[in-house]
Amino acid sequence: MILQAIGHLETPFATIADCPRNGRRLDPAPECLAVVEPRFQPGLAWIEGFSHLILLYWLGPQPEQVTIRPPFDDRERGVFATRSPVRPNPIGLSVVAFAGLDGPGRLLVRYLDCRNRTPLLDIKPYLPTTDAEPGASMGWLAAKRA
Amino acid sequence: MILQAIGHLETPFATIADCPRNGRRLDPAPECLAVVEPRFQPGLAWIEGFSHLILLYWLGPQPEQVTIRPPFDDRERGVFATRSPVRPNPIGLSVVAFAGLDGPGRLLVRYLDCRNRTPLLDIKPYLPTTDAEPGASMGWLAAKRA
Repeated sequence: MILQAIGHLETPFATIADCPRNGRRLDPAPECLAVVEPRFQPGLAWIEGFSHLILLYWLGPQPEQVTIRPPFDDRERGVFATRSPVRPNPIGLSVVAFAGLDGPGRLLVRYLDCRNRTPLLDIKPYLPTTDAEPGASMGWLAAKRA
Repeated sequence: MILQAIGHLETPFATIADCPRNGRRLDPAPECLAVVEPRFQPGLAWIEGFSHLILLYWLGPQPEQVTIRPPFDDRERGVFATRSPVRPNPIGLSVVAFAGLDGPGRLLVRYLDCRNRTPLLDIKPYLPTTDAEPGASMGWLAAKRA
């Protein structure tokens, strides 16, 4: 199971320390770019009209551990109960607002919280019919709401 | 960028032809299992209490094409404007309802639409604060609503 970058993300966050806890914490949320390489750009046909997208990206090599202590927390949690970048397959996921194309293969998006130049893996249209669960309960994170 | 299976999914769908168009189309949605291998099971600590999860899984080798004609459609669409399994990195994503653990590493979930024995890549807690966009617009899919 081997991945290939389809492009990269451009964000204002140069280092991990610059990244906000989540992409909606900054107000206003900064404009970011998802840049798709020319050979994958025909895959963007008909993407205009979706107000939101799901972006998957590569978080880089991570420690081989399945529990972590989040920075805002005082207990060890299983990585699958967190959105930490530390996980067996370091794939990051953000639901982003999509404001249209700024030239070929250049998608204007908001709500990213990852480092500048993060490799992009996939773009999926956000479908409220299957992806929106506004009443979902947040487990242990409810008490640590960002 | 190399992935490893952390487990597999158990669904009632033996073949691609058996899979519903989306995991909420069957009513009632069948119970499925996300099975996590023993060495990754400590990563599940504190997962109980989340009502919904995001599962990422491997859709297997796919044709190398960036446009497809969906089965319910009469036009060619860019793969990034669809949820088709045909995409450069064949990672599937489902938002599932989580009903708790049925033994160690066995998560009871609903709303999967993938084949039985699909390799599981990641489990993330669903956070309504960053993942729910109930008012999102669906672009070309609005007219083809499942």
